[in-house]
Amino acid sequence: MSDPLVVFTPSGKRGHFPVGTPILTAARQLGVDLDSVCGGRGICSKCQITPGVGEFSKHGVTVAPDALSKWNSVEQRYKDKRGLIDGRRLGCQATVQGDVVVDVPPESQVHKQVVRKAASARPITMDPATRLYFVEVVEPDMHEPSGDLERLKRALKKQWGLTDLFADLTVMRKLQTALRKGQWSVTVAVHSALHDDRPRIIDVWPGYFEGPLYGLAIDLGSTTIAAHLCSLTDGDVVASSGVMNPQIRFGEDLMSRVSYAMMNPGGDAEMTAAVRASINGLTEAIATDAMIDPKDIVECVFVCNPVMHHLLLGIDPVELGQAPFALATSEAVELPAAELDLNSMHDSARIFLLPCIAGHVGADAAAVALSEAPDQSDELVLVVDVGTNAEILLGNTTKVLACSSPTGPAFEGAQISSGQRAAPGAIERIEIDPTTKEPRFQVIGCDLWSDDPAFAAATAQTGITGICGSGIIEAVAEMRMAGLLDPSGLIGSAAQTGTERSIPDGRTHSYLIYDGTDQDGPRITVTQGDIRAIQLAKSALYAGARLLMDEMGVDTVDKVTLAGAFGAHISPKHAMVLGMIPDATLENVTSAGNAAGHGARIALCNRTQRAGISKTVRAIEKVETAIEPKFQEHFVNANAIPHATDPFPHLATIAPLPDVNFNTGSGGEGGGRRRRRRA
Amino acid sequence: MSDPLVVFTPSGKRGHFPVGTPILTAARQLGVDLDSVCGGRGICSKCQITPGVGEFSKHGVTVAPDALSKWNSVEQRYKDKRGLIDGRRLGCQATVQGDVVVDVPPESQVHKQVVRKAASARPITMDPATRLYFVEVVEPDMHEPSGDLERLKRALKKQWGLTDLFADLTVMRKLQTALRKGQWSVTVAVHSALHDDRPRIIDVWPGYFEGPLYGLAIDLGSTTIAAHLCSLTDGDVVASSGVMNPQIRFGEDLMSRVSYAMMNPGGDAEMTAAVRASINGLTEAIATDAMIDPKDIVECVFVCNPVMHHLLLGIDPVELGQAPFALATSEAVELPAAELDLNSMHDSARIFLLPCIAGHVGADAAAVALSEAPDQSDELVLVVDVGTNAEILLGNTTKVLACSSPTGPAFEGAQISSGQRAAPGAIERIEIDPTTKEPRFQVIGCDLWSDDPAFAAATAQTGITGICGSGIIEAVAEMRMAGLLDPSGLIGSAAQTGTERSIPDGRTHSYLIYDGTDQDGPRITVTQGDIRAIQLAKSALYAGARLLMDEMGVDTVDKVTLAGAFGAHISPKHAMVLGMIPDATLENVTSAGNAAGHGARIALCNRTQRAGISKTVRAIEKVETAIEPKFQEHFVNANAIPHATDPFPHLATIAPLPDVNFNTGSGGEGGGRRRRRRA
Repeated sequence: MSDPLVVFTPSGKRGHFPVGTPILTAARQLGVDLDSVCGGRGICSKCQITPGVGEFSKHGVTVAPDALSKWNSVEQRYKDKRGLIDGRRLGCQATVQGDVVVDVPPESQVHKQVVRKAASARPITMDPATRLYFVEVVEPDMHEPSGDLERLKRALKKQWGLTDLFADLTVMRKLQTALRKGQWSVTVAVHSALHDDRPRIIDVWPGYFEGPLYGLAIDLGSTTIAAHLCSLTDGDVVASSGVMNPQIRFGEDLMSRVSYAMMNPGGDAEMTAAVRASINGLTEAIATDAMIDPKDIVECVFVCNPVMHHLLLGIDPVELGQAPFALATSEAVELPAAELDLNSMHDSARIFLLPCIAGHVGADAAAVALSEAPDQSDELVLVVDVGTNAEILLGNTTKVLACSSPTGPAFEGAQISSGQRAAPGAIERIEIDPTTKEPRFQVIGCDLWSDDPAFAAATAQTGITGICGSGIIEAVAEMRMAGLLDPSGLIGSAAQTGTERSIPDGRTHSYLIYDGTDQDGPRITVTQGDIRAIQLAKSALYAGARLLMDEMGVDTVDKVTLAGAFGAHISPKHAMVLGMIPDATLENVTSAGNAAGHGARIALCNRTQRAGISKTVRAIEKVETAIEPKFQEHFVNANAIPHATDPFPHLATIAPLPDVNFNTGSGGEGGGRRRRRRA
Repeated sequence: MSDPLVVFTPSGKRGHFPVGTPILTAARQLGVDLDSVCGGRGICSKCQITPGVGEFSKHGVTVAPDALSKWNSVEQRYKDKRGLIDGRRLGCQATVQGDVVVDVPPESQVHKQVVRKAASARPITMDPATRLYFVEVVEPDMHEPSGDLERLKRALKKQWGLTDLFADLTVMRKLQTALRKGQWSVTVAVHSALHDDRPRIIDVWPGYFEGPLYGLAIDLGSTTIAAHLCSLTDGDVVASSGVMNPQIRFGEDLMSRVSYAMMNPGGDAEMTAAVRASINGLTEAIATDAMIDPKDIVECVFVCNPVMHHLLLGIDPVELGQAPFALATSEAVELPAAELDLNSMHDSARIFLLPCIAGHVGADAAAVALSEAPDQSDELVLVVDVGTNAEILLGNTTKVLACSSPTGPAFEGAQISSGQRAAPGAIERIEIDPTTKEPRFQVIGCDLWSDDPAFAAATAQTGITGICGSGIIEAVAEMRMAGLLDPSGLIGSAAQTGTERSIPDGRTHSYLIYDGTDQDGPRITVTQGDIRAIQLAKSALYAGARLLMDEMGVDTVDKVTLAGAFGAHISPKHAMVLGMIPDATLENVTSAGNAAGHGARIALCNRTQRAGISKTVRAIEKVETAIEPKFQEHFVNANAIPHATDPFPHLATIAPLPDVNFNTGSGGEGGGRRRRRRA
């Protein structure tokens, strides 16, 4: 009689094994993705499986109730102490006694997929660079002298197949105590990148250490620094946090920071120190939020534009301020966190910076490429990552083009009179009645609209404090749809618009959204200057996209993906009304959320993707907006807030756009903008 | 007609090359060892060659006067500026015009041999881990965006065949400025160890940087720290210096330092900080001596015993103080100098610690193995490295055994009443007239003997300050030969020895070598305590050697090599009279000088040897003296200062040893020593 058959689901892998073979052993021999940290010692419980009983016609197996060995004391002890779902067994304890079908639940897979939060987010398969291994080490013997480290390495080779390991000095220093305290068993954290460096043991704990270890995915933007703290076991985001980039005091946009470095000796070092201190603070804050020790953060992935990339590394960004915009290094950079003075996290934490695509197209664009994968799309997709610099990708499986466009910080609520960053109390949605010209709005932290009777009470705590990036985009688009703005971007007077909310403001007009002055609150308006700032920003964005379409030789795209730290909050309809993006049917415009941040998280959780991005990046064709005359042309042409006509035929299906003209031709701002710019 | 023949001497390599081929190109194609840093651009002059003219019957070539291209302006400019030996040409400028014989002088070879200073020192072939490369880098192009670092790497691959390079962060930070200052040519220093780590660019200079770069070979002893500063171009020792190990204040011998670490929380960190600070000071002092910038020191090799090894790395040595004497790590350790706070040298300097053989047999023994290579000797050779711990190796091509023996610091002049370290003014040689029992001596810094009329004047400056290690060994041996000591080590009284220099000293006697008290100088005697300290030290040494001989199953050895920081100064004759070493004919006992230090220098200059020592060390069989009962037996038996009989038959041919016995049997020290030890 042949050995019993073991069938694993969901993989379908199967094989015959002698009676008494542990399920974990069978799984390993068949290459089934069944996790284990303790190597089958009944300690870690990562190898939980669910045996089936009965008829499995699909697999041609009938499983008897005694197909596995009896529930044993190790399993009972684990269940008593830590709990175990009914029907589950430990794969290292249950042994084969007869034909059996064994299901590996998702959480027992090494390469488990991270649960998708947003429908649009691409799933992440766990394969982090840093993993824990429990190992039993041979005791020292005077007659066979070898170092404790060498015996640890031999054990890791024998028990886990890990070879060619390198140990950090801190590990050499802690190892002897840990081995003796753990009675010759320890858990080590091994960082193993998929490139040519040797895998390194970065930490050691006595006995079995459960973890989890954590990683940070940081989107280091010009204006904001956003961080996700992720478990490296299951990829869960356990906390998210953000701070303003402290470099703003040296210059709001990137070029002014480059100028600061050029004009002030030591200026770049000053900015480097500021951003590193801020990241240390953010690391501590996010760890406090999640109630973990920041020293359990062993990895940190950064995505950022080239100037932030250089300033983080302590490289003078001066070359990025002038043609040919030479990067100091374009490849991915991996180094110890300590070399960047990022001392809040684990002492041996490793930093990974995604590669830069070009002098103006950074690691953030690479992260967007990783997240949105235009190179894997059959349809021609335009990905627009909105920020102080917009990263724009256009492509499909055939070819991907990339550029960066200097939109400025208006989309992030900066340079806007009532602007603020996205935080409770900020107006994020707005509607203007086309007849009455009266607005209603929602603020962050409250689901009610402002015309709801319960709104005042519901927002009493946060107040109504300003307008965030997505709010100002909606406000401008709604003003245009309500006939408060003409296509040139001019706000009409009360007489022209028929609403007292259009109030004189110097030589121009503002639109009053909210007046809280009677309760010591702010007076929130959209000024003519705000409109101009948004026009400049959206023109830059649109011009970048058009430039890529020219390069690609197309007039339309199949899909538009809006991304960015606040990309999830931009309404596709309003973006189209504003003319931020090229014309498309509304159903083909989607929001991807923070694609750069998501790309950072992918790189954090999956070292194969991390290694692959360098190859992807090298295949992307870069288009340099700064030296392309067509970019200027598109920029100027894109200034208007469009009519529902060419090049925006789809606009007509979305919104009626009143054909108004508030330019009186007699001084004022109307028509004078271009003259002023020339002055 | 075939292409001209080019023959290189001394290698004899030959080949035909088209007219116009530069000699450097021909050399490279044939694999001739001809140096070049600038890659053939007429800048570095490393490729100097000497063409022959006339009949070369050995090679079957007749060389015409015009066999090479004419002397050119590049060569003339170099000669005017830097000088060039008559007859020399630059291999990158001189091209093949006819059959030619070209000699590569030693200094133009990449793998040049270091000139041997001592006849006994094994020659070193240069192959340092860190080398300079001059390289021309393509300028950046906006349409082909790539980082400056990536273009540098491409250039290094194309021009030097270097692949898979890694750049230190400091290099990324300096690169852009260097490239532009050097007009797109730079010199880089690449550290390339022969193991699995990627070669790393550790520094960059604009244009052509000649070097040289330097390395430190440090023998980190329990009592003294000795350093050689070597050029990494030609291996020359440009300066040597030493300091006392500051850890002496925590304990004179290793075990008392281990105890200090065990008894005092933070005690190990204190000792680590002390030794690192001392090495930083030594680095600066030696650089000042050599008039170089300490930041040009890019490598540092350490040899040391296991306790010093751990304390240098910041590892608590407690495990080394108790069986089974487990090392934290036994393999070679390579890491950045900065990780050890060795900040005086280059910021990216790399440290290499030789592997330890066992818990009591350290990297210093490995270095002795590298220097003396017993594993390559057909004769059975005993290598004794004398220090506070003696490292002892016994072996030949078949097998090598090693042990360490705790001799204590007596051989280094410590624990000796008039002892001092080897410095000007210290007595280093001594003779005692067997008839008159009068001594004469030499001091360090003066070649005259003390009975020379000019001696007083010649030593007026240094004075006569004490006795160093080699001096005390000679003193004790001479006292035995002159009948002042009996075989048990007892100093006779004036009545017994017939000299007033034998003076009462408590219950025992001392021998007066020098009395300088009338000139406010010291009174230098050899006390009974000094004799006992030397007896303990030499017994430990002898017992270790005997133990290895037992293990090897031999009663005699073919050769004895005395090594150690002061090994070169030990007189083989006196060592034999003392019974420090097993019996051998005098001509087979030689001094090797500082073998551990020489081994460190070999590892510094030659990365192949560095890589090979790990393999050699693994093949060495370790013998643990601390747990071997035979060691104690040998130790007790070796206490006497021997008669010229078994086991020392060769002694009879060296020196008559008077058969005296000063033990009166009535109290005093004689015969009472063992009782006192038991008390």
